[in-house]
Amino acid sequence: MSIIKDYSLWEEGLRKILWAKRFMPVLDQIRKDYIDKKPLSGVNVAISVHLEAKTANLALLLKDLGANVYVTGSNPLSTQDDVAAALVHEGLEVFAIRGATEEEYFYHLKKTLENDINLIIDDGGDLTYLLHTELENLSDRIMGGCEETTTGIIRLKALEKEGKLKFPMIAVNDAYCKHLFDNRYGTGQSTWDGIMRTTNIMVAGKHVVVAGYGFCGKGIAKRAQGLGAKVIVTEVDPVKALEAYMDGFDVMKMEDAAKIGDIFITATGCRDVIRYEHILQMKDGVILANSGHFNVEIDIATLEKKALKKYEARKNIQGYVLENGREVFVIAEGRLVNLAAADGHPIEIMDMSFAIQALSSIYVAQNHEKLERKVYNVPGEIDRFVAGVKLKSLGIEIDRLTFDQEKYLESWEV
Amino acid sequence: MSIIKDYSLWEEGLRKILWAKRFMPVLDQIRKDYIDKKPLSGVNVAISVHLEAKTANLALLLKDLGANVYVTGSNPLSTQDDVAAALVHEGLEVFAIRGATEEEYFYHLKKTLENDINLIIDDGGDLTYLLHTELENLSDRIMGGCEETTTGIIRLKALEKEGKLKFPMIAVNDAYCKHLFDNRYGTGQSTWDGIMRTTNIMVAGKHVVVAGYGFCGKGIAKRAQGLGAKVIVTEVDPVKALEAYMDGFDVMKMEDAAKIGDIFITATGCRDVIRYEHILQMKDGVILANSGHFNVEIDIATLEKKALKKYEARKNIQGYVLENGREVFVIAEGRLVNLAAADGHPIEIMDMSFAIQALSSIYVAQNHEKLERKVYNVPGEIDRFVAGVKLKSLGIEIDRLTFDQEKYLESWEV
Amino acid sequence: MSIIKDYSLWEEGLRKILWAKRFMPVLDQIRKDYIDKKPLSGVNVAISVHLEAKTANLALLLKDLGANVYVTGSNPLSTQDDVAAALVHEGLEVFAIRGATEEEYFYHLKKTLENDINLIIDDGGDLTYLLHTELENLSDRIMGGCEETTTGIIRLKALEKEGKLKFPMIAVNDAYCKHLFDNRYGTGQSTWDGIMRTTNIMVAGKHVVVAGYGFCGKGIAKRAQGLGAKVIVTEVDPVKALEAYMDGFDVMKMEDAAKIGDIFITATGCRDVIRYEHILQMKDGVILANSGHFNVEIDIATLEKKALKKYEARKNIQGYVLENGREVFVIAEGRLVNLAAADGHPIEIMDMSFAIQALSSIYVAQNHEKLERKVYNVPGEIDRFVAGVKLKSLGIEIDRLTFDQEKYLESWEV
Amino acid sequence: MSIIKDYSLWEEGLRKILWAKRFMPVLDQIRKDYIDKKPLSGVNVAISVHLEAKTANLALLLKDLGANVYVTGSNPLSTQDDVAAALVHEGLEVFAIRGATEEEYFYHLKKTLENDINLIIDDGGDLTYLLHTELENLSDRIMGGCEETTTGIIRLKALEKEGKLKFPMIAVNDAYCKHLFDNRYGTGQSTWDGIMRTTNIMVAGKHVVVAGYGFCGKGIAKRAQGLGAKVIVTEVDPVKALEAYMDGFDVMKMEDAAKIGDIFITATGCRDVIRYEHILQMKDGVILANSGHFNVEIDIATLEKKALKKYEARKNIQGYVLENGREVFVIAEGRLVNLAAADGHPIEIMDMSFAIQALSSIYVAQNHEKLERKVYNVPGEIDRFVAGVKLKSLGIEIDRLTFDQEKYLESWEV
Repeated sequence: MSIIKDYSLWEEGLRKILWAKRFMPVLDQIRKDYIDKKPLSGVNVAISVHLEAKTANLALLLKDLGANVYVTGSNPLSTQDDVAAALVHEGLEVFAIRGATEEEYFYHLKKTLENDINLIIDDGGDLTYLLHTELENLSDRIMGGCEETTTGIIRLKALEKEGKLKFPMIAVNDAYCKHLFDNRYGTGQSTWDGIMRTTNIMVAGKHVVVAGYGFCGKGIAKRAQGLGAKVIVTEVDPVKALEAYMDGFDVMKMEDAAKIGDIFITATGCRDVIRYEHILQMKDGVILANSGHFNVEIDIATLEKKALKKYEARKNIQGYVLENGREVFVIAEGRLVNLAAADGHPIEIMDMSFAIQALSSIYVAQNHEKLERKVYNVPGEIDRFVAGVKLKSLGIEIDRLTFDQEKYLESWEV
Repeated sequence: MSIIKDYSLWEEGLRKILWAKRFMPVLDQIRKDYIDKKPLSGVNVAISVHLEAKTANLALLLKDLGANVYVTGSNPLSTQDDVAAALVHEGLEVFAIRGATEEEYFYHLKKTLENDINLIIDDGGDLTYLLHTELENLSDRIMGGCEETTTGIIRLKALEKEGKLKFPMIAVNDAYCKHLFDNRYGTGQSTWDGIMRTTNIMVAGKHVVVAGYGFCGKGIAKRAQGLGAKVIVTEVDPVKALEAYMDGFDVMKMEDAAKIGDIFITATGCRDVIRYEHILQMKDGVILANSGHFNVEIDIATLEKKALKKYEARKNIQGYVLENGREVFVIAEGRLVNLAAADGHPIEIMDMSFAIQALSSIYVAQNHEKLERKVYNVPGEIDRFVAGVKLKSLGIEIDRLTFDQEKYLESWEV
Repeated sequence: MSIIKDYSLWEEGLRKILWAKRFMPVLDQIRKDYIDKKPLSGVNVAISVHLEAKTANLALLLKDLGANVYVTGSNPLSTQDDVAAALVHEGLEVFAIRGATEEEYFYHLKKTLENDINLIIDDGGDLTYLLHTELENLSDRIMGGCEETTTGIIRLKALEKEGKLKFPMIAVNDAYCKHLFDNRYGTGQSTWDGIMRTTNIMVAGKHVVVAGYGFCGKGIAKRAQGLGAKVIVTEVDPVKALEAYMDGFDVMKMEDAAKIGDIFITATGCRDVIRYEHILQMKDGVILANSGHFNVEIDIATLEKKALKKYEARKNIQGYVLENGREVFVIAEGRLVNLAAADGHPIEIMDMSFAIQALSSIYVAQNHEKLERKVYNVPGEIDRFVAGVKLKSLGIEIDRLTFDQEKYLESWEV
Repeated sequence: MSIIKDYSLWEEGLRKILWAKRFMPVLDQIRKDYIDKKPLSGVNVAISVHLEAKTANLALLLKDLGANVYVTGSNPLSTQDDVAAALVHEGLEVFAIRGATEEEYFYHLKKTLENDINLIIDDGGDLTYLLHTELENLSDRIMGGCEETTTGIIRLKALEKEGKLKFPMIAVNDAYCKHLFDNRYGTGQSTWDGIMRTTNIMVAGKHVVVAGYGFCGKGIAKRAQGLGAKVIVTEVDPVKALEAYMDGFDVMKMEDAAKIGDIFITATGCRDVIRYEHILQMKDGVILANSGHFNVEIDIATLEKKALKKYEARKNIQGYVLENGREVFVIAEGRLVNLAAADGHPIEIMDMSFAIQALSSIYVAQNHEKLERKVYNVPGEIDRFVAGVKLKSLGIEIDRLTFDQEKYLESWEV
């Protein structure tokens, strides 16, 4: 029995799903290649990914490949109720409601896992977390799974290091066709989509502070510059800091950037990157947003405690009046802004990321007996296959090495 | 008696207005400078500008400067009903409803003009049009007005050329602080805000065709490149075409661009720039949007007539199935995409444009007896004043010429 | 009798001229169109333009159009002796030597003018200056001329304002096909060519201070950003300052920029933009360069007087040890860096600028009797002709307005 | 006994070395840290790196750290004779002459190795090659070495794979502080420096074809775009091809790009990337340049054989008249353009790369007994040290993880 907000919303949800489908040629190709073989036949799959139209296409593909699919969200604010309804309409079981409380959210995750799940598709690591704590008893049936995010993989590797990981997991984020594109071009565009549509303010000319210069931060910074902003990067890694400098950005400590920035965006995977001490240094009227997976990058908790007043400044924007008389504005309560304040990544990006998910799921289903309780990289051929299909869908042909060239590349003689 | 959709929406409208006010320091400074002098005392002003939160701030400023303000929209799809309600709540008379039919829309304009109007603030020229045709009898009372757009100014100059213009009009669009910023940075950002939020598709990698390389087209092309797209420009003016080429864009005829583009955006001020013959050449699934003032740049009329089927592909996106089996998607029925599918220009941009409007209105009120029935440029000191206030609000100080430098610049000797 | 350095250099000079010719399709087209008509037949033309391979092509074209051509330079450091030799080899008279002293330089100008000159092509205004002072007696024969630079036009307008201008001059710089392209793309690229080849330092990451945000400054700033630098703009005009801000650059006073910059480039047309007081604020080891016409934008004179020591730090780089112990490095003695430290504008740019020159010269020759002693704009049809030929040479076709579109643009009715 | 061109050139060479030294803060810091410890005391080091001012600073540093340094070039066209003279003046032995024939070049390498060499610093793999073939007998004394380039590492790994590698080699290219910066920002800037100064043609508007989208290709493409060009990328790897597409570049096969490009640049590390069959497809007057290590990327050999005529079109530019009547222009005979037609990488870049070299050399000297006959990565702490020193020299401070943040990053629980 599904748990969703309102079944009657299914028609608008289905429209969104079909729209997305148009821009997902790689998933389409996988469907064509595998629909007859049904490689996931009999596998019970739990999907905990931001529940919107693109994810729905992954869920429907897995169903077409033979799986029994159980869907939940990975963040209460990113769930789209109409899409959830459409998936139920299409015969899937769904456990997700937008705006669920923390407690309800975990309840939905548990209801999802209580379906004899064999394979998980996780995004941030919450399913994995439950299967290693409260629902540990269900972990025996799990043949393995895939994890989508940097954050989730950090958590998985911590588990693996402590020798506690209970099933093999594929680090989807580490595939080239995922992190090169999703984290940079996806987060880059959708973060700004979310900020622009929520605030209606000008980006050009602004001082934008980007915390973290990993692939997400690189994408956010690049698009900020493309929109005419001046970018300041904060980092803890000297090599990445230097890369930001060479890319033409200012680099400094957050305590210094705090005084200059007009818009602050966190993308580190770490907590407390913007702390209350920083917020007190900021100019009146600055905007804070988070693009990392969890809403811990900006220390909202302390802000809530210390602010004199909190109010809704505009839809999805929380205004805080500080003790120093200034105000700061937080978008979507510091949850990841591209999902909580926009429609997540552009469709084409998730087509590739989810193609990696789908093929990795098949890989787990077919190879789980040989796999150890480790975090695995995505097999290289999956990466190349996805890139190849995407290029083909774009009508792009590329060169091939000639025999002489291959020989040359293998030789050490002049 | 105002004509609006629903008075009860005023609170959300007021929130939007106050949010915008935060980012409008130039209007704020004008209020401070003039509130005691009330330079518009006793003047009845009609405002026909896209009715949303920024425009509301102009209307409220003019009221604070002493005017009796009557507000209508300048496009049925850009009116925001909650903002209209808030203005009524603040004591203004408003005649505008989102989604009004053509007939209703003109009825609202007329109701606005039937208030002993002396001064008009026009956007696209519809008030002016009525005052030269159906409501010609009301034109005697008009001391003059201001026109915001390129399109409107083209119409005004046509009137002037035929010797029919009935009152002086200030070409606000031609002020540096308007067209340099509004048309480039405003249209550039907000066009892409509208396209991204409406479609959720990737911009990076796409072939974007921009029709027209005036200031609007320049802004749209620059932001497209900033978002990772490959830009193709079409133009009728060889100098502008060459400028686009040197800016690193491909330049070609629309009939050639039609075959390559993924997203098409018109910004020419002209009609039928994308014609049915071009649409038939396009790839399956392309997106068409218009950033020009009127919805005539894409020939929607012929498309409606010839398409086999029309359906709502996603909210605010019309899908058309063509006779050749392909589909094209039009955003917001070809109306100007930044207003019909987003919140219009960024706030800071309209702060400057509306500052020009406000100061030009004062100028008209104070000088109308000396002015002829002509289209006037904005006085240079207004431009410099607005730029100066904006810089000051940003905390930016600039150099001044020394005495020796001024002398040098005036000299022809070595 | 020509005055040049060394006739034997002609072969290398000719090679440079022929190389440039390859990339000058517009001059080529003018040659084809006019070679039979010889519109400059019997006209004695003096050319004072930076004497290198592109200028040589203009000189040779004018000769082919019937003129008797006398060539000098417009800056002692920009003259290329091999090109001068090649022009003599081709039968022209040339008066220019690289590295001439101020006195020698003016001597060369005078020798050029003492050839019954009727028409001058000036670059910076030195010929004009002589014809209004020392050689005033020769001005009666002058039917008019063309001026290439912003600097020269400022001087001409000062003359005109004082009622002293003795013959009509065409302001070539104000043609779209000149200042839109030459000043932005030409100066932009060649300034950086000069700085990079002279210093071998990294541009990416550096703080580059650009003084002046006219068309030259815009080009320099844009290319700086394209090379990965962070740009700071200084300006005296608030509208241009705001434009720089919106283009994503920092804007501040020179006294503040002085403390931050790594590389400083002046492009204002004014004197003493970087003064000794600024230089004392600078970090150790900064680079100073000038892209304006005259070497007065950086106050080298005071620097020479106050520095403890001056030495050649690298070829064409002067190191100065300051009283505060720091050093600054000046490229090419503060002369315009793209000519004194590189090969001037890219060839294609000068093709267009010189096409304007050639056609304007013909225009003066044919219309001088109707022209007054004023500064004239380049006729619009010359601009459009040049843009059209350039587009054609690139194989670019553009749209034309349909009849209905033209009618629409002329109409004021809906 | 050194073998150089002309000792009397030493003064200009020394000036270049001292200029470079100014911009090499990381080498400076290493000198300060190690000068007392003399970690290379008694080690005979052979350096085969492009012999110009930056390399000279590495050589002088190694000498200061105690080594006996023997210097040769790594490409006959990149050797600067004045710098070679200056090194001899400073007491080093040097074996290199610009423009040496193939035979002479290898003679110089051999003379260098015949000095009881223990440690090699190689660039492209020519020293290594000799030590595995003709001079195999000298390989016993070698404790190990460092290799600078992608090309050299490909050759080393081929040797290792065949089990033939005779001593441990550090893959300097694979250090982050090398390939992230050197290959992208170094090659990017210096390639365009070389092309612009050699040709004087406009980059803006041109179609630039970049073969290979590794780190070098990425840098070249990015700077091309920054200079206003339209970029086409060719690739053999689908993931890299897709990355180029998402970065906003056109991607196609060389046979298709050949018809469109105005400027072609190879950066693949492979041979015959531009073949005669491609050249025959090209437009008249295109420019070909190579940024890869060896001059085999453009098939010059076949071009030489098939062309009707070859001539010097401009200094360092070879013009070829093809059988189809068109001409193509090759810069610097297809040798790596940034060294053969400019001054190589910007100084600051080589400061970092050579810091890796110096520290890796110390590492080899101190650990060679523990190292196997393998290709080793640069130890991570060397990378971080170099990045840290560089940041410090720029006055940049970065954040540090707090205790709570470190704990958070190691945890898998919510």
